[in-house]
Amino acid sequence: MEKYLITGFSGFVSRHFLDFLDTRETHASVLGIDMHDPPFDVHGYHRLTCSFERLDLLYDKRAQEVIYNFQPDYILHLASYSSVMFSWKSPVLSFQNNTNIFLNLLEIVRALDADVRILSIGSSEEYGNVSDKELPLREDQPLRPVSPYAVARVSQEMLSRVYVEGYGLDIVITRSFNHIGPGQNEIFVVSSFAKQLAEASRNGWSKLAMRTGDLSIVRDFTDVRDVVKAYHLLLTKGRKGEVYNVCSGRGVSLSEILSMMSEKTGIELMQTTEPKLVRPSDNRAIVGSNQKILVEVGWKPEILLDTALDDILEDWRTRLEIA
Amino acid sequence: MEKYLITGFSGFVSRHFLDFLDTRETHASVLGIDMHDPPFDVHGYHRLTCSFERLDLLYDKRAQEVIYNFQPDYILHLASYSSVMFSWKSPVLSFQNNTNIFLNLLEIVRALDADVRILSIGSSEEYGNVSDKELPLREDQPLRPVSPYAVARVSQEMLSRVYVEGYGLDIVITRSFNHIGPGQNEIFVVSSFAKQLAEASRNGWSKLAMRTGDLSIVRDFTDVRDVVKAYHLLLTKGRKGEVYNVCSGRGVSLSEILSMMSEKTGIELMQTTEPKLVRPSDNRAIVGSNQKILVEVGWKPEILLDTALDDILEDWRTRLEIA
Repeated sequence: MEKYLITGFSGFVSRHFLDFLDTRETHASVLGIDMHDPPFDVHGYHRLTCSFERLDLLYDKRAQEVIYNFQPDYILHLASYSSVMFSWKSPVLSFQNNTNIFLNLLEIVRALDADVRILSIGSSEEYGNVSDKELPLREDQPLRPVSPYAVARVSQEMLSRVYVEGYGLDIVITRSFNHIGPGQNEIFVVSSFAKQLAEASRNGWSKLAMRTGDLSIVRDFTDVRDVVKAYHLLLTKGRKGEVYNVCSGRGVSLSEILSMMSEKTGIELMQTTEPKLVRPSDNRAIVGSNQKILVEVGWKPEILLDTALDDILEDWRTRLEIA
Repeated sequence: MEKYLITGFSGFVSRHFLDFLDTRETHASVLGIDMHDPPFDVHGYHRLTCSFERLDLLYDKRAQEVIYNFQPDYILHLASYSSVMFSWKSPVLSFQNNTNIFLNLLEIVRALDADVRILSIGSSEEYGNVSDKELPLREDQPLRPVSPYAVARVSQEMLSRVYVEGYGLDIVITRSFNHIGPGQNEIFVVSSFAKQLAEASRNGWSKLAMRTGDLSIVRDFTDVRDVVKAYHLLLTKGRKGEVYNVCSGRGVSLSEILSMMSEKTGIELMQTTEPKLVRPSDNRAIVGSNQKILVEVGWKPEILLDTALDDILEDWRTRLEIA
């Protein structure tokens, strides 16, 4: 039986990865680790045997024993303090909870001396400031990280290469672009828009005043349910030591997304720009090329933006009802 | 009075920096911090008022208070676990004692909110594997770090840039190539050769059997007494956020150095190559360009290799007599 270790188990992406594994014919065994308890029932799956250990990869000495006892075939390393804004406020914590926990995990795997593949999740933030003529970003583009978070992610990628070349570890690396999808925390922009619109719907409003950041910025959004399929393909078919963009290859502005959702909910928006929400050094546009992952492992996103936004709005309606 | 904070105060480079400061007309005040006590008298200087605090930048909460109380104008950040070999054995310790201590220092300086310039010492190791046609290495050469130590140094450099751009800190960055000079630890190759020859001289031998690594490798050596002058010039005249190679611009093979020292001591060498001392992934040649530091701050090395080797041999004669 295939054995998956998932770090950052209690988060948004992990839950969708579990849902994906559960749709497959193959039975699998999963050990989740996280600093926080999962907000879902680990025993609620059909084809998965799931267990959970609450521990902190930064300090907890039990991590080695727990992982040794499990003997994973695959490690999906999702654990991360992934907010750029947080990294500006607490750079030390951000760095430790990205690079240092990853390094601790690599050392545990090196000591295991077993046949295990790791998927190291990186970020499009690694590219840093890019000009429009460099789009879509390919994996061989130079990295110019401009936030503490981005530096931590580039460091993680460089460490991955050193552990592949120097110690023979089997690591595949992603640079993942923006994800969206049901269940995402409202600190992320699309989720925040959807929540506000779903609330307005529930209140029976036909108009909504919304303060936003700069809506002209263009990002490359992929539905998390496509992202987790990419992660599974990279774990099973990616090339050791290689970096893959995980992205749609298509840029969409925040104003387009907001218009689509406004139309879906029938709510008219009165939008104003809130200077505090505008990030000073943000790139105007970030769009990736997904040619490499398409050619090498056959992944492409399948969920249309339209469908994703429907599902996100529906998810918020449900979350607000339960709350 | 100019105030210098020196981290890694008890090491080889720091001591030469103090000697340099002491030759200047200007009186200066120095606060040294290090995990280890200095192996020299901190009160033995003419124009320097020196004090020392033993503390660990990785864990010691007193660091902030100590630095705040001193209010430095300049920070020379030498603290580092600088051995590449050690970093392969203990990557976590190496990474923490390079990148994490640097990040802790930056956070202390950010909280100080004062007009202080930091010199961040990096390494030619950051360049990684280079081909002969890329020599001499210029600062705009891509960085391809191949050891945990080198990754830690590149991370330090990327963090420096983020703190300059994002928080307005005043940081100048070096990539320092190999140093040699009196007082260097014998784990470094030229110091090790010199010690063995000085011992043979003392024993009255005319021949010496020596086991070495690969002597054909070419490196760019600078006398530490020139290096510390470069550091002082960069602290006072370097451009904020810029990276400077500190190197001689000239490649010398280890066999040339060994021949020169053999001739100086009149000891005939019977050299054999010890496979354990040959590093598998080492570059054949590493030579830097020092054009940028020459043009921008007017530094060039002044001590001839011949003089450096004389002084290193003489230093070992003295150290062996005392021992």
